[in-house]
Amino acid sequence: MRIGVIGGGQLGRMMAMAATPLGIHMAFLDPNKGACAGDVGLLVEGAYDDHYEIRELIKHSDRITFEFENVPPETVAFIADQVPVYPSALALETARDRWLEKNLFQRLDIATAPVADIGSQDDLDRAVERIGLPAVLKTRTMGYDGKGQKILRTTDDAAGAFEELGSVPMILEGFIDFDYEVSCIGVRSANGDLAFYPLTRNEHRNAILHRSEPVADHPLQATAETAVGQVMAALDYVGVLAFEFFVVGDRLLANEIAPRVHNSGHWTIEGSTCSQFENHIRAVADLPLGHTGRITPSVMYNLVGALPSREAVLAIPGTHWHDYRKDPRPGRKIGHITVTAATPAELEERCAQLDPLLCNDLG
Amino acid sequence: MRIGVIGGGQLGRMMAMAATPLGIHMAFLDPNKGACAGDVGLLVEGAYDDHYEIRELIKHSDRITFEFENVPPETVAFIADQVPVYPSALALETARDRWLEKNLFQRLDIATAPVADIGSQDDLDRAVERIGLPAVLKTRTMGYDGKGQKILRTTDDAAGAFEELGSVPMILEGFIDFDYEVSCIGVRSANGDLAFYPLTRNEHRNAILHRSEPVADHPLQATAETAVGQVMAALDYVGVLAFEFFVVGDRLLANEIAPRVHNSGHWTIEGSTCSQFENHIRAVADLPLGHTGRITPSVMYNLVGALPSREAVLAIPGTHWHDYRKDPRPGRKIGHITVTAATPAELEERCAQLDPLLCNDLG
Repeated sequence: MRIGVIGGGQLGRMMAMAATPLGIHMAFLDPNKGACAGDVGLLVEGAYDDHYEIRELIKHSDRITFEFENVPPETVAFIADQVPVYPSALALETARDRWLEKNLFQRLDIATAPVADIGSQDDLDRAVERIGLPAVLKTRTMGYDGKGQKILRTTDDAAGAFEELGSVPMILEGFIDFDYEVSCIGVRSANGDLAFYPLTRNEHRNAILHRSEPVADHPLQATAETAVGQVMAALDYVGVLAFEFFVVGDRLLANEIAPRVHNSGHWTIEGSTCSQFENHIRAVADLPLGHTGRITPSVMYNLVGALPSREAVLAIPGTHWHDYRKDPRPGRKIGHITVTAATPAELEERCAQLDPLLCNDLG
Repeated sequence: MRIGVIGGGQLGRMMAMAATPLGIHMAFLDPNKGACAGDVGLLVEGAYDDHYEIRELIKHSDRITFEFENVPPETVAFIADQVPVYPSALALETARDRWLEKNLFQRLDIATAPVADIGSQDDLDRAVERIGLPAVLKTRTMGYDGKGQKILRTTDDAAGAFEELGSVPMILEGFIDFDYEVSCIGVRSANGDLAFYPLTRNEHRNAILHRSEPVADHPLQATAETAVGQVMAALDYVGVLAFEFFVVGDRLLANEIAPRVHNSGHWTIEGSTCSQFENHIRAVADLPLGHTGRITPSVMYNLVGALPSREAVLAIPGTHWHDYRKDPRPGRKIGHITVTAATPAELEERCAQLDPLLCNDLG
């Protein structure tokens, strides 16, 4: 079995680390000839719409999967004509477009913030009236890590905001005064088997994920699993899907889905029996899904823009170093650290030792 | 940091899997152009005494380590002249020669079976008289997995046995009626820090390791750690060392050491905080050692000569598949499975499900 991946960054790299012991070969398409997944698989250098290089990738692939959702739909269609694609084109199309995504949530009766589709400044003005301020204006496609969005606090902020974000299709979302964010990572096999990891509590800095911690027995676990399962069934999904929610009191409000392995699931490498990467590969390869339970308390910290001292970090017991071997740039995720411990108290103590060593450059 | 390895088999492959997240590049020297470590690192194709190709490996290496102990001493000396070598030449020389090894144990007052150095049939006859029968005759060098040895039960077996095993230097060891075999895997850093994994109970079939299970709180753990620590200190050892012992009642008798990561430590990938592979890399790279405690009950099974159904194995919860991507041959180790579980009872149940699926061809 050979699996091809559109994208050759750290997510692909960690997929390959999980696939190798399973005896599965990985190949990657990436425009960057130094793409870091190339360390552990075959790298095909090419743009994501370069049909010649896509054909080259397909030559080395029995199935194709994705490392990111902003794949040109024409690319997905071109590939799907030749080789099975997981997740489905429908899943990618839905996840890359915030309006289609919110529409799906509404059809499935999954609670969200108030939301409106925006095609013009007029639409925006009307939506501001209906939803109220503050609210968040987001481009329908191509947004990530806080890019392609603007918080509107006053009608002045709203004036001209449609043009400011590029006069492209957008959505306006009512501002949610949420307690915190969680994500639920699920995996679905071709025959409809489902498995879910424990909810992960996420903390951002400068709109970039800073820290994720899986929560034992979260009271909203079952609610989240129901929503993730519904979405995966509706999209005829195969593979890992990450679903971000806002926690508001005892309720979950759906934020967004990512049709792929996700940063908030990196803790699963050491913290769970079968990691999100292995489970994604298992699903795509049509192998039985692995257990998703927590085996030990853990926390993941992103390394953004700069790496701390590896020696100092590894001197703390239970630290697991993940260097993606990417060139450091402010705001760029270049690694992560997972901390594990036998008890929550020990974990807290280790995190307290680690925290002052981190030297992220958020840009 | 770049680490070169003499040998490119599964041990090197698993070292590279541990080194990659640490941001460390691996290169391998192996005469086989399909050597399986080449999937996850740079493979230099060349014989172990080919100085041209060894120089090529050194070009890609800040330090050199070893995947097996039967490296020509000239190769070790040649490399050590150019780049640091871990473990030391002395460690390799001692471990590859059963007589030097036993001598070291005796110097350190580590109990062994009665043993004699054999250079001729006369030596053998005298040693049989002194030690008694049954006894085991072994070549001093190049023996592994039961090769290069003969059990002598009667004086008839002893007659001509020196010639039969090739008229090379040998040892004769008194036969030990042991209860079972354990191994203790230790790791030592350049500054003398030590860490030890829990004792692993090993079961062989046809002289090939079949199953290894780490034992929680084995009463002989401290005794074993003392011996391993003494040997590592005596050899100025850096890296992972495996020490096999016979358990006889409440005593340990030293069998042999392997100056490298070891098959009986494969369970540490999933069963310990920091695997033997990562700890070996950490030691060689002069990074702090990782924790060696058991995080979950586990058992490792070797896959020899043939792979069972991957689908069937992965359908059992807590199974971890390791395909080395080596061509199957009777008696050849081509993969392993580690089973983990939350409790010993659950582990036993999962092993009972796994056992009938195994289809080893021991040759």
